Amino acid sequence: MPTYTAPTKDMQFLLHDVLQVSQNDIPGYDELDRDFTGAVLDEAGKLAMEVLHPLNTVGDQQGCVLENGVVRTPEGFKDAYKIMCDGGWTGLDMDPEYGGQGMPYILQTATGEMFSAANMAFQMYNGLTHGAMSALAEHGSDQQKATYLPKMIAGNWTGTMNLTEPQCGTDLGLIRTKAEPQEDGSYAITGQKIWISAGEHDMSENIIHLVLAKIPGGPEGVKGISLFIVPKFLVNDDGSLGARNAVSCGGLEHKMGIHGNATCVMNYDGATGFLVGEMHKGLRAMFTMMNEARLSVALQGYAQGDIAYQNALGFARDRLQGRDITGAQAPNKPADPIIVHPDVRRNLMDQKSFVEGARALVFWGATLIDQAHRCKDAEADAMISLLIPVMKGFLTDKGFETTVLAQQTLGGSGFTREWGLEQFVRDARIAMIYEGTNGIQSLDLVGRKLGLNGGKTVMAFFDMVKTFLKENEDNAELKSGFLDPLKAASKDLQAAGMYFMSDGMKNPNNALSGSYDFMHLFGHVCLGLMWARMAKASIAALEAGDTDTDFHATKIATGRYYMSRQLPMTGTHLARIMSGAEPVMALDAANF
Amino acid sequence: MPTYTAPTKDMQFLLHDVLQVSQNDIPGYDELDRDFTGAVLDEAGKLAMEVLHPLNTVGDQQGCVLENGVVRTPEGFKDAYKIMCDGGWTGLDMDPEYGGQGMPYILQTATGEMFSAANMAFQMYNGLTHGAMSALAEHGSDQQKATYLPKMIAGNWTGTMNLTEPQCGTDLGLIRTKAEPQEDGSYAITGQKIWISAGEHDMSENIIHLVLAKIPGGPEGVKGISLFIVPKFLVNDDGSLGARNAVSCGGLEHKMGIHGNATCVMNYDGATGFLVGEMHKGLRAMFTMMNEARLSVALQGYAQGDIAYQNALGFARDRLQGRDITGAQAPNKPADPIIVHPDVRRNLMDQKSFVEGARALVFWGATLIDQAHRCKDAEADAMISLLIPVMKGFLTDKGFETTVLAQQTLGGSGFTREWGLEQFVRDARIAMIYEGTNGIQSLDLVGRKLGLNGGKTVMAFFDMVKTFLKENEDNAELKSGFLDPLKAASKDLQAAGMYFMSDGMKNPNNALSGSYDFMHLFGHVCLGLMWARMAKASIAALEAGDTDTDFHATKIATGRYYMSRQLPMTGTHLARIMSGAEPVMALDAANF
Repeated sequence: MPTYTAPTKDMQFLLHDVLQVSQNDIPGYDELDRDFTGAVLDEAGKLAMEVLHPLNTVGDQQGCVLENGVVRTPEGFKDAYKIMCDGGWTGLDMDPEYGGQGMPYILQTATGEMFSAANMAFQMYNGLTHGAMSALAEHGSDQQKATYLPKMIAGNWTGTMNLTEPQCGTDLGLIRTKAEPQEDGSYAITGQKIWISAGEHDMSENIIHLVLAKIPGGPEGVKGISLFIVPKFLVNDDGSLGARNAVSCGGLEHKMGIHGNATCVMNYDGATGFLVGEMHKGLRAMFTMMNEARLSVALQGYAQGDIAYQNALGFARDRLQGRDITGAQAPNKPADPIIVHPDVRRNLMDQKSFVEGARALVFWGATLIDQAHRCKDAEADAMISLLIPVMKGFLTDKGFETTVLAQQTLGGSGFTREWGLEQFVRDARIAMIYEGTNGIQSLDLVGRKLGLNGGKTVMAFFDMVKTFLKENEDNAELKSGFLDPLKAASKDLQAAGMYFMSDGMKNPNNALSGSYDFMHLFGHVCLGLMWARMAKASIAALEAGDTDTDFHATKIATGRYYMSRQLPMTGTHLARIMSGAEPVMALDAANF
Repeated sequence: MPTYTAPTKDMQFLLHDVLQVSQNDIPGYDELDRDFTGAVLDEAGKLAMEVLHPLNTVGDQQGCVLENGVVRTPEGFKDAYKIMCDGGWTGLDMDPEYGGQGMPYILQTATGEMFSAANMAFQMYNGLTHGAMSALAEHGSDQQKATYLPKMIAGNWTGTMNLTEPQCGTDLGLIRTKAEPQEDGSYAITGQKIWISAGEHDMSENIIHLVLAKIPGGPEGVKGISLFIVPKFLVNDDGSLGARNAVSCGGLEHKMGIHGNATCVMNYDGATGFLVGEMHKGLRAMFTMMNEARLSVALQGYAQGDIAYQNALGFARDRLQGRDITGAQAPNKPADPIIVHPDVRRNLMDQKSFVEGARALVFWGATLIDQAHRCKDAEADAMISLLIPVMKGFLTDKGFETTVLAQQTLGGSGFTREWGLEQFVRDARIAMIYEGTNGIQSLDLVGRKLGLNGGKTVMAFFDMVKTFLKENEDNAELKSGFLDPLKAASKDLQAAGMYFMSDGMKNPNNALSGSYDFMHLFGHVCLGLMWARMAKASIAALEAGDTDTDFHATKIATGRYYMSRQLPMTGTHLARIMSGAEPVMALDAANF
C-alpha cells in the first residue's frame, strides 16, 4: 500500500525563506508568520495523511456507481467530506461575509496540494465547488450570492462547471444547450453536457450547476453564450430546499483514472436556470476564474508526481538488488538497496528536482494571484495570466512523466495494483487533458499571452530574470551552477520569442507549429529561475547559520541537478521551434 | 471502439525497397520475393484484424480469472488460439524437422508486429512459447526436443519462462528455488516464481515451464543457476499426457494492463523437473535467446504506438473543432477537422515518424538475427547484440510515449474506456519494465555492449554510418534533410562514447550516470539512419518512375520531420551525459 507524507517542511521553506510572504505588502499576508502557516499546514497535512489518503485506493477500486439516477461515491468519501467541512477547509479562502475564512489564496494552494496528492479524485469535489463559488462571488447578484455562497462555503452544497457537450469541448462556439426565457425571469435549460466532474453524488444536500447555454436569438458562436445557475434542488425563499429540478445524471464515464470522482453525462430537460451576470457574456464570466482553475490543475500534476516520488523513494531504499559498482554498501545483506545505483538515482533526482521546482513555481503563482486580487495589481494579473498556460501545460506533462518515472523505479511492482504507483499514473493523466488540453494551453500562450499588453508582460518576465542575474552575479556559489545555465536557457527562450515575432508574422503556422515546444521551453526557464531563487535562499540560510544544513545542502544539490540535467532541454526545444511550419504542415491530411 | 489496419504496404516497402531481402545471401531469403511476403503478410494481417483485434477490448475488460487452481482466459481467446494454431502461425520460423514452417525470423517479426498490435495480451501467449521453444531447440537434448517441440510448434502445448522470485528480478544471483537431484535423473523443484506470463491458462493441453533453480552444493550467485523443464502434465514415453506435476498457480497479479494475459504466481512443490543443457549453466541457456526475446518486446512498444496512432489519426480526421488559422478548410461544416491545426499535426507527426522509423529498425534487426543464425555470422551477431538494448529500451520508452501522444489527440475521449486509447497506454507500459527494465538495458549497453570485441562492434556501427554518409554525399535531396542531421547526431553519439572511455575509466559512475541518456541518444541515431535509408529508397523509387508518388513523397516528408524535430534531442542527451556523475550522486541516500 502506498504512503503519503505531507511536505510541510518544504512548504514552510518556500513560504518563508524563498517567498518571504509575511514581509509582503499584500493585505492578509502580514498574518502569515511561520507559526501561523505552520499550524495551518500541519492540520491540513494531518487531514490529508489520515483521512483522505487511506481512501485513495478504495476510491480507485470501487469507483462511483449510478443506480436509478443516484450516484453512490466510494465507501468513506461521505464521512471524509463531512470532516473536511467541519474543519472549515471548504471555505478557506472565501469571503468571511459568507462564512469563509478569508485566508489568502497561497494557503488554499498549499493545503490543496496536500489534499490533491493524498486523494486527487476526492479533492476534485472541492475543486469544482471552489470554481463555482469563485464565479458566483465575482459575477452573481447580491441575492444569488446570499442564496448560494454560505451553503457552498460550509460544504452543505457542492458545485459543478458545465461547458463540454458531445460536439464541442475546445470550440465552445458550437454549444447547443439552449436557455429559453420564462415569464418569471428564469430560463428553461435544455441540452446535454458531458464530462461533468462531480455532476451527481451523495456527499452533499444540493448541487449547484453552473451551465453555459445559448439564449435563442443571440449572436452566433461564443458571443451568444450565457451562464446559468441550475440547482439540483430549487431553493425556497427561506433558503430551504424546494422541488427537484429537471436535471439528471444520464450516465457515468468509464475512465482510465480518478475513479473516485463521478464524471457525469448531465441531461437538462427544461430545467430551471437563473442567469448569472450579463446575457451573452457567459464565457467571460466562466473564465474569469480561469487562472485559479488552471493553477489548481497544474498543482494536481506535480502533487501526483510528489506522492509517486515518495513511494518510489521508499522502494529504492528498501529493495535489495545488485551491488554498488564502487563497492558493497550493505555487505551484511544479500544485496545493496537499489538507491546506490546511478541510474536509479538519475530517475529519483529527475522526480525530486521536478516536484520541488514545480511547487515553488505554483506557490509563486499563487502569490501573484493574491497580489492581483487583493491589491488590484494589473501587472501581477498580467504576469500570472502569461504564466498560467505554462504552469498548466508544462507541470501536468512533467507531473505525469514523473509518475511514470516513479513507477519505473519499482520495476514489475510498479505495474501491479497493490503498490499503487500505477494509480498515480492513471490519475495524473487527466490533468494534461481537462481545463483546456495542453495543446490549447500552448496556443493560448503563443496566440494570446505573448502579445499581452503589446508584449510588455513577457518583456517584464525577461527583465525579472535579467535583474535576478544581475543582482546575484557576485554570488560565486550561485554563478556557475545556477546563473550561467539560467542565462543560457533564458536566451533560448528569447530567441524563440524573436522567431515567433519575425517568422510567425509571415506565416502564423510557424508560430503555431512551435507552440508546444515553446510552452515547455518557457516551463524549463521558470523552473530554472525557481531553482536559482531556492538555491539563493538556502545559501543565505547556511551563511546566516541555519543549523538545518542537510536540508539546505540537499536543496542546493537538487537544484544543481535540475540546472545541469534538465535545463539543456531548452536547446532542443529551440531547434524544433526554429525548424518552423514546413515539416509539420508538409503532408496532405489524406496522406498521413 | 478502436480499429486496426495491418500496415502491410509499409512492411513490403521495408522488405523490398529498403532491405531488399530477396537479394540477400542469407539462406531462405531467396524465397522472399514480393509476392510471397505479400501473401504471408496479407494472411497474417487478416488474422490480426479479424480474429485478434476484436478480442482486445474483451480481454482488457474481462481479464483472466483464477478459480480452484484453473485460470480462465477471456471469452474467445481459446477459439482464436485454435485458429492461429491451425494456420501454422505458432511455428512459422521453427525447424521443419519438428513441424515448423522454417521461415526466416524477419517474417516471424513482421507477422508478430501485427498480432501484437492487434492484441498484445493475446500474442504474449505465443511470445512466451516461442521463447521456450527457442531455448529448447538450442539447449535441449535430442530426446527433449523430440518430446516437446512438435507439440509446442503445433500449439497444442504452450511454454513459459520462470526467472523472477519475490526477492529477485534483476539480480538473479539471489534465486532461492531449489532443484534436488532424484534417483531417476530428474530433479525435485521447490520454490515460488512470480510474474509468470501465461503461467496457467485454458488455451492449451499442457504447459511447458522453463524454470531457473539452484542445485544444492553448486556455486554461489548466478554461477549456480541451472535450467529445468517442468511440464504441467508429465509426458509419457508414447507422448501422451501423464500425471499432473506438483506445479500450480497460486494467484494472478492485478495489473495496470495486459489483462488478457494471465500473470501468475507459480508454486513449485517438489515438482518433477528435467535439466536442460549443462548443470550450473542455466542462465546462459536462458539468455541465449535474449536477443530475440528483447527484440520482440521492442516490437511490442512500437506496435502499440502504431495502433494508437491509427486511432488518433482517425479521430483527428473526423472531429470537427475550430477553424484553420489560414482559412476555413470545411466551410460547409460547423468547424474544420482538427487535423488542420498545426499542434495536432505536430502530435501526429511525432507518432507517425516514430512508428515507421521503429519498424525499419526492428526489421533491420531481424535480418541481422537471421544473418547471425543462418550464416553463423559473428559480426552480425555482435552488431545485433550491441543494438538490442537500444531497441528494447528506446523503442519501448518511445512506444509508450507515442500511445500517450495518441491519447492526447483525442482530448477527453482519450481518457474514456470506449475509445480504447487508454488501454493502449496501459498495455504498452509493461514493455518498459519486463525482459529487463529499460534501466537495465542501458547498463547492458554501456557496461557490456560498448566494450564488445574490444570496442570493434561499436566502431563498426560508426563506420557503417560514415560509409552511408560518404556513399550518398552527392545525393542532393538526401544531403540537407537527412545526411547533415545524421552526421551531427552521430557526432554527438561518438562524443558521448569518448567521454565514457575517458571519464568512465576514472570513475565508473560517470558512465553509469549517463547510461540512460546514451541509450536514447543511440536510439535517435539509429532512427535517423533508418529514415535516411528509407528516404534514399523512396527517392530512388520516384526516380525509377514508381507511380505511387504519394506514398514515397509522404515517406520522405515524414523522414524530414523526424530529422528536424526529433534528432536535435541528441544534443540534450549529450549535455546530460557530459555533466557526469556529480549531480546524480551528490546526495546521501538519507537526504533524498
